[in-house]
Amino acid sequence: MDERIRKQVAFILELDREKNVFRQTSLTGRGRKENDAEHAWHMAVMAYLLREYANSPVDIARVMLMCLIHDVVEIDAGDTYAYDTAGLATQKAREEAAKERIFALLPEDQREELTAVFDEFEENVTPEARFAHAMDNFQPLLLNHSNGGSDWLEHGVSAGQVFGRQQKTREGSERLYEVSELILREHIENGSLKTEDG
Amino acid sequence: MDERIRKQVAFILELDREKNVFRQTSLTGRGRKENDAEHAWHMAVMAYLLREYANSPVDIARVMLMCLIHDVVEIDAGDTYAYDTAGLATQKAREEAAKERIFALLPEDQREELTAVFDEFEENVTPEARFAHAMDNFQPLLLNHSNGGSDWLEHGVSAGQVFGRQQKTREGSERLYEVSELILREHIENGSLKTEDG
Repeated sequence: MDERIRKQVAFILELDREKNVFRQTSLTGRGRKENDAEHAWHMAVMAYLLREYANSPVDIARVMLMCLIHDVVEIDAGDTYAYDTAGLATQKAREEAAKERIFALLPEDQREELTAVFDEFEENVTPEARFAHAMDNFQPLLLNHSNGGSDWLEHGVSAGQVFGRQQKTREGSERLYEVSELILREHIENGSLKTEDG
Repeated sequence: MDERIRKQVAFILELDREKNVFRQTSLTGRGRKENDAEHAWHMAVMAYLLREYANSPVDIARVMLMCLIHDVVEIDAGDTYAYDTAGLATQKAREEAAKERIFALLPEDQREELTAVFDEFEENVTPEARFAHAMDNFQPLLLNHSNGGSDWLEHGVSAGQVFGRQQKTREGSERLYEVSELILREHIENGSLKTEDG
């Protein structure tokens, strides 16, 4: 095996560890918690199916790739729950170190290429990154919705927190933001999502 | 929610069930068995990283999408192990029925579009389908290799069976076939893959 393919294989095997990074979202049917690999897969298929709702035209291959690799740093840094304030304070530093280590397994040209895709997602400026972020929100929202809002109840997350997070969906897709809002209002009405005043 | 997006959401939630379809391949580190969603995610990232080795130039977005959805029928039909002769005899009929039911959840235009991508993979004629098949073989081969060939040992699979299966890899990528051959010869030498004459 030559050096290039040996490095590619090493990176591919390292990626496997994402299947053991578990998130706070439960699978449909109030199943077990979802892992990062499953979440990324679901987001990538969703991006393809829902691309018509992106605010601006997107390069769908780039969005899909972004969805597929956006959580790779969590192999080292672990999943930081969107509503975990303490975890969020150290998240950036933990994820930067992970990014350096993991992408360095690749051949140099691919290290640069994948780091650029990863950074583009994080910077969240291009239409592709914004639409990928909309998927990152909309995917757990749908799972949680299908489970009657059980993840929000379990973590005592408030409507204000969830609505705040949906602003990123809006930057990627006004249409999916509208749908998210409809869903959230339904959960506020039935009590699975608490407003500040109860 | 309008009818179109309601259907798209129904399909997206149905897809979630792929996370509970388990395969015969163990995760690296001799971990638990892998599920279809994780396998598809891994294949799609690999396709992107290894596209330089495709025998013919490929539309990488189509290959990635093909990888992502190629096992969707297993939601109903279950995983059929590559070396399960009895299961393979009924696989086609079970998967056809599943295909009809599951893609019909989508709006008509997307039902047609995804069915075409799925069928293209199954027919295995285009460069995209052939390269996706190479990923479908190379991904479990790498996991099994990293685990010292434990899946082959567990199932008593012979070298002849595994080599037979790698012919599909060769149609998609001569280079990855060479690498697969190197790996298999290593496992024959160390005894984790049995030849017919022991």
